Amino acid sequence: MVSGFPELLPGQRFVELAVLDRLRSTFELHGFAPLETPAAEPLDTLLRKGEIDKEVYVLRRLQAGDDASDSGLGLHYDLTVPFARYVLEHAGHLEFPFRRYQIQKVWRGERPQQGRYREFTQADIDIVARDTLPFHHDVEIARVMAEALAALDFLPPLTLQVNNRRLIEGFYLGIGAPHVGAVMREIDKLDKVSVDQVRALLTGVADLDEGQADVCLRLAEIRSTDTSFVDEVRALGVEHELLAQGLDELAAVIEGAAAIEGVTVEADLRIARGLDYYTGTVFETRMSGWESLGSICSGGRYDALASDGRSTYPGVGISLGVTRLLMPLFQSGELTGSRAVPSAVLVALPSEDARAASDDTAQALRRRGIAAEVAATPQKFGKQIRYAERRGIPFVWFPGAAGAPDEVKDIRSGEQHEADATTWTPPESDLRPQVIATKVDR
Amino acid sequence: MVSGFPELLPGQRFVELAVLDRLRSTFELHGFAPLETPAAEPLDTLLRKGEIDKEVYVLRRLQAGDDASDSGLGLHYDLTVPFARYVLEHAGHLEFPFRRYQIQKVWRGERPQQGRYREFTQADIDIVARDTLPFHHDVEIARVMAEALAALDFLPPLTLQVNNRRLIEGFYLGIGAPHVGAVMREIDKLDKVSVDQVRALLTGVADLDEGQADVCLRLAEIRSTDTSFVDEVRALGVEHELLAQGLDELAAVIEGAAAIEGVTVEADLRIARGLDYYTGTVFETRMSGWESLGSICSGGRYDALASDGRSTYPGVGISLGVTRLLMPLFQSGELTGSRAVPSAVLVALPSEDARAASDDTAQALRRRGIAAEVAATPQKFGKQIRYAERRGIPFVWFPGAAGAPDEVKDIRSGEQHEADATTWTPPESDLRPQVIATKVDR
Repeated sequence: MVSGFPELLPGQRFVELAVLDRLRSTFELHGFAPLETPAAEPLDTLLRKGEIDKEVYVLRRLQAGDDASDSGLGLHYDLTVPFARYVLEHAGHLEFPFRRYQIQKVWRGERPQQGRYREFTQADIDIVARDTLPFHHDVEIARVMAEALAALDFLPPLTLQVNNRRLIEGFYLGIGAPHVGAVMREIDKLDKVSVDQVRALLTGVADLDEGQADVCLRLAEIRSTDTSFVDEVRALGVEHELLAQGLDELAAVIEGAAAIEGVTVEADLRIARGLDYYTGTVFETRMSGWESLGSICSGGRYDALASDGRSTYPGVGISLGVTRLLMPLFQSGELTGSRAVPSAVLVALPSEDARAASDDTAQALRRRGIAAEVAATPQKFGKQIRYAERRGIPFVWFPGAAGAPDEVKDIRSGEQHEADATTWTPPESDLRPQVIATKVDR
Repeated sequence: MVSGFPELLPGQRFVELAVLDRLRSTFELHGFAPLETPAAEPLDTLLRKGEIDKEVYVLRRLQAGDDASDSGLGLHYDLTVPFARYVLEHAGHLEFPFRRYQIQKVWRGERPQQGRYREFTQADIDIVARDTLPFHHDVEIARVMAEALAALDFLPPLTLQVNNRRLIEGFYLGIGAPHVGAVMREIDKLDKVSVDQVRALLTGVADLDEGQADVCLRLAEIRSTDTSFVDEVRALGVEHELLAQGLDELAAVIEGAAAIEGVTVEADLRIARGLDYYTGTVFETRMSGWESLGSICSGGRYDALASDGRSTYPGVGISLGVTRLLMPLFQSGELTGSRAVPSAVLVALPSEDARAASDDTAQALRRRGIAAEVAATPQKFGKQIRYAERRGIPFVWFPGAAGAPDEVKDIRSGEQHEADATTWTPPESDLRPQVIATKVDR
């Protein structure tokens, strides 16, 4: 195993699959189509944004000859750039607004350090349109991801934080800030440095006076899980057309998503997102007790996901860092799978001659959706039970000798009773490996 | 999109997901644990086999500095080499026999040509043990993959061909062939060149006399979907201990897997598999009408999947080429998805003010597992129906005006009736996109 390329044990992989299955199910219920793009893209596609070129892994054939048809390829470092390329390339085959989800590995050649991976899985949803994308899709994206996060009910509490770039830009313009972008960049540092340091940067780098800096810091303190933030912002006495529009939009997102149970959705006026291409709604997500991870699910509205001269494709999307979220929980022992194999039942093997009968029993269980395996060797039953125990298989099935009925034993409770492989069913919770969440003191 | 890196439209991706879901379900019912390994492995791991080094994609950071911790990495070109590395690395955390399935992309820097891909998906199952792996696992692997193939009931008919290296080696030793490996290599060419050419190679390169060559060719002609091949081989009058053992093993595999409906399992004494590490059972698979693709699912028994000085890990496995199988069927138009979106229902939008009500209706459907989307804009209903039509969504839902009941329309039949979003359910076949198989003249 190579540093920065995480690898899971089977029990952990069950947890990851449970996460991916629930995400997929939520996304599909909302009409998002599944999409995959190749791992490799032309370098000029990958570097169009120009920002993170040093992180790209370039591909080279070990013995490249005169055939250069695969030179100039790199592994994708996110799923947004390939999606933008996909939309332009296949626009003629797509119906807009186009909803897609994309769950794939991405690669970045980063120095390995805590919380940084060179290979990791992201789960993205985006809605993209041709020329115009109505605002209600921002509300839709927030609701879909909030529901998806709520379905991951074995995770520590999650808070989806929403803000609006128009709101903060309008606010800064309303107070007469000379460099709106500079104010946003300094406010964005509140996560990392003290309020006083940010105040100094606002009056220094961003050229604000003391009063302007103060009101910007007060704006950044506002947060609410309902639309009460609107009145709090208005109480600051700043007016601007963009601010008013941003307040309306943010209120609509909060109103639309606040009622979803199992996740907190809050307006947080500090959130700005560093990337320049967001133009309206912006999202970040924190996991309770794991604030040091930063945002584990981020996104927003962009007026031009892609553009080909004839058309511009505006979009709104959000990206969940699955690996970034799960690896710390695996490493701390807070999340594990209930067993290392899918099997709910081990069918015991009285003797090698009885293998065909044990196979038939296992097959009868499988036909009804119960995962089963047959003991590898006809050891003493005590050893076969321990074989099941080591794998975490909850039930051992004993074929009845000489016409006697079969019996099934729950090896956790020791309870054993007669059973018929064509009718017996384990409790729903034993049918598949379960996600076990344990609170760990850190 | 880059040559050799296939990319699917949403409808095709539904078909691929249906394939992967069915494979996963079959594998898990039989107790195979899900496994993923990183895309990248150290080059010295990848090149251990030494054969296909020219096909490996090496990774290099675009701006590699003094940090060399990710130099010497390449993308895996199959799932067997990473699995062998995984077994050695995690042996202490695994219970043997260890069953795993692995469904992942692999990469090979090949020149693009018909049926060759640079990125493609494989689905592998393997059973590996420490030191010894009883023969019955060969039967198990054959049954599990035969069942998995049978579950892909929308594909052209598949034939899983089985042979045994001991059988053919024993046979060649029994006739006194001076170079057993050479005979195997020449017989393996029967797919590509004529019988007379192979006969010439057997008497030339492989040093057989006419009688020996003849009996080898007669052996290679034997095939049967039951164990009748045993008598046919015996009728050739050759005797050898290995031949007898191989016949027993092959008969057991055929007997164990022949009864599985929906797939043909046959003993085919011509199958040898080029790779040197197979030692017993060998598998290949042909798709009817697509013989030119070669084997789309291959594998066998290997006495040493991995070895670490202390222990040797024998295994048996088989690998299905998912991309190799599906892409030609997509390109010929023989397989498509029934629609391009997961949505079974489009909830119509009478006016922008009614969006919240239409959202609630869609949510009521989703709560019962029915994928739904709401119309993007409140166009005339005729236009909203055509919007659904273009996406392949089978049902349009009309919210009732002013207390009137809702109605749902099957836009294929035109049939429309009253319905309640908390109770109405579409036919099972409309719930999810279906795989549509069409016979195409080629």
